[in-house]
Amino acid sequence: MIQQLQQIVQKEKKYAVGLMSGTSLDGIDAALVEISYSGENTEVQLLEFETLPYSDLERARFLSLCSPETSSVETICLANVELGKKFAQAALTVIHKAGLVTSDIDFISSHGQTIFHMPEQYATLQIGELAVIAEESGILTVGDFRPSDMAAGGQGAPLVPFVDYLLFKHKHKGRILLNIGGISNISVLKADGKSNEVIAFDTGPGNVLIDSIVIIGSKGELSFDPNGEIARSGTVCNSWLEEIINHDPFVYQQPPKSTGRELYSQEFARHLWEQGQARNMEFKDIVATVTAFTAHSIAINIKRFVDGRYETEEILVGGGGTYNDTLLAYLQALTDKKVGKMEDWNFSSDAKEAIAFAILGNEFLHGNANNLPSATGAKKQAIMGKLVFPSKEK
Amino acid sequence: MIQQLQQIVQKEKKYAVGLMSGTSLDGIDAALVEISYSGENTEVQLLEFETLPYSDLERARFLSLCSPETSSVETICLANVELGKKFAQAALTVIHKAGLVTSDIDFISSHGQTIFHMPEQYATLQIGELAVIAEESGILTVGDFRPSDMAAGGQGAPLVPFVDYLLFKHKHKGRILLNIGGISNISVLKADGKSNEVIAFDTGPGNVLIDSIVIIGSKGELSFDPNGEIARSGTVCNSWLEEIINHDPFVYQQPPKSTGRELYSQEFARHLWEQGQARNMEFKDIVATVTAFTAHSIAINIKRFVDGRYETEEILVGGGGTYNDTLLAYLQALTDKKVGKMEDWNFSSDAKEAIAFAILGNEFLHGNANNLPSATGAKKQAIMGKLVFPSKEK
Repeated sequence: MIQQLQQIVQKEKKYAVGLMSGTSLDGIDAALVEISYSGENTEVQLLEFETLPYSDLERARFLSLCSPETSSVETICLANVELGKKFAQAALTVIHKAGLVTSDIDFISSHGQTIFHMPEQYATLQIGELAVIAEESGILTVGDFRPSDMAAGGQGAPLVPFVDYLLFKHKHKGRILLNIGGISNISVLKADGKSNEVIAFDTGPGNVLIDSIVIIGSKGELSFDPNGEIARSGTVCNSWLEEIINHDPFVYQQPPKSTGRELYSQEFARHLWEQGQARNMEFKDIVATVTAFTAHSIAINIKRFVDGRYETEEILVGGGGTYNDTLLAYLQALTDKKVGKMEDWNFSSDAKEAIAFAILGNEFLHGNANNLPSATGAKKQAIMGKLVFPSKEK
Repeated sequence: MIQQLQQIVQKEKKYAVGLMSGTSLDGIDAALVEISYSGENTEVQLLEFETLPYSDLERARFLSLCSPETSSVETICLANVELGKKFAQAALTVIHKAGLVTSDIDFISSHGQTIFHMPEQYATLQIGELAVIAEESGILTVGDFRPSDMAAGGQGAPLVPFVDYLLFKHKHKGRILLNIGGISNISVLKADGKSNEVIAFDTGPGNVLIDSIVIIGSKGELSFDPNGEIARSGTVCNSWLEEIINHDPFVYQQPPKSTGRELYSQEFARHLWEQGQARNMEFKDIVATVTAFTAHSIAINIKRFVDGRYETEEILVGGGGTYNDTLLAYLQALTDKKVGKMEDWNFSSDAKEAIAFAILGNEFLHGNANNLPSATGAKKQAIMGKLVFPSKEK
């Protein structure tokens, strides 16, 4: 075992698969990467990327695990194994797509599927059994990172800023990395800053409210707003927008902070929908206003909690939100910084989070601390993650 | 990290804490042991033992996690962290009781608290967050063994027979190691046998039904039958006993097999209680008969699934059931093998399971397979367990 670990960390180039599935429950992102070195010297190259989507049925079932009312120990126990198999399948798919075989791969690093997150109680639950991933793939597996940060007094989120720092720190430019998944979060990298100077936190909703509103308004025919076209065709209701912003319990909260589907829930979206209905608004106008709220929630957080502290020039946007042009346009209108997709910096928006988890796994294997106390609020530097081996006979 | 692991496995004597909490939900057993070598050369010495009991309230709460009707993702998420802290507390207590400090300890190995086990679906759920144990203790932690065996096609149980084999194999005597926890299980060691010749399986109820019946019959004043005194004062109803045996869905099932509170549930006990009531039986006679059923279920399994295959002379009994003299007397009356407590062989009944998990952790760290496919039905030899590190600053 120790020998195997030693061989991996001594390699000049390691092949790894990063696995990520976000709160938007779209599916499992699998990034096959080549990693050199570790820590601030880390270099990473994306070789292949694949998303294994959840079916509507799977999404509905996994969503039911996230709610105290509809979840049970039995459904969680079963889904943990089922998701482990699906994570393994995502890894095998991306490996084969790249023309490689499992014995080429040094490790898998899996975020898992968050089904509950209680930052104030330092408790979180990610499923997608690591032992199943290791066994089904035959590959050494690292994962389940968040509990370690929370055990050290952190909020267990955000974790990606640590990787943002390793990969995107710049000698002369201050940068904001914005990830728009179900929830939005930012990593603020000071020009020539140190890791403990990174500011990072969730800003509020990403796609989660827009998606829920579109599902409600289309009676389930659409599950998201394609390219933000519905929002673009609508008109923002400014008085309602102001009301939403003023009543939001999270946007103005002082960082470090993190949130999830517990707050921006289906009930939250249904409540918004009913407010829009009460104002006799059309579907497209409701979507436009909720999209504007999402953009504002990001912009407000940057203005309030970033601009006074660091000078920044660029907002590098990754995550599923990069497919919502209207959301990005609204955001650009609210800031004088350059707003662009990761691709403008020669990096994959889609693969960014999955790549980040591959790198967190690499840091774990090198025995490096891989949380960012300045981002998570942890009292200590944690070596986040759990290590699992596949069985001996293959 | 690798250096730390290397230092541990190269040590002549390792100090470890094994942590175990069974389905009977009595509390957390913590065994502080000194381990030399690994595999078949393993030597272990118990230095100190402590049980951190669950309060009645805790037991009731943790029990509610084990049932689909009363559990939820929220209560599981919270209890995972809460139990992690309690496991850490148990470890720290036994370390201090031994006059040692945490930096003396090389690793903790934790079974966790099983809250659901579905062998047919290869799914199981143990909680007691490993990251919390590692962080609260500052000690490297291994645990969560069962999922690896199940991922390899096993039932995830029983796990202790592997350790029974390492510690109790005998050149000339065939031995049965019987553990009476909530559930009873046996490990059958052929004289001069190999590890793949070990037979092991759950035989059915241990204390679980007796305890439940005592709770019902005493209206919660007692939670178990002290020394088996209630049973001793009662009379076994043989016609009912026969009926219970004949209707039991598990006792005659072919091994490998495992069971738990899912089958021998509170409902199961309540059903027995009602049968006894319908026969106008007194409390003590019901307890006597259920105790006899427990003894018979063990004896039947030995007669039916062991005696034809291996010659055995001794039954070494460990677990909480060793405190029930009536149960042991009933069992002795049903067999001509020598029935005795582990203490007769100079080993602690109480600490046996906790010691076993320390040894499973030791095997993991040495990179040795630590499941027993002949016992669990696994298709492969698994290196069961997950490895977690405490944070860097202490």
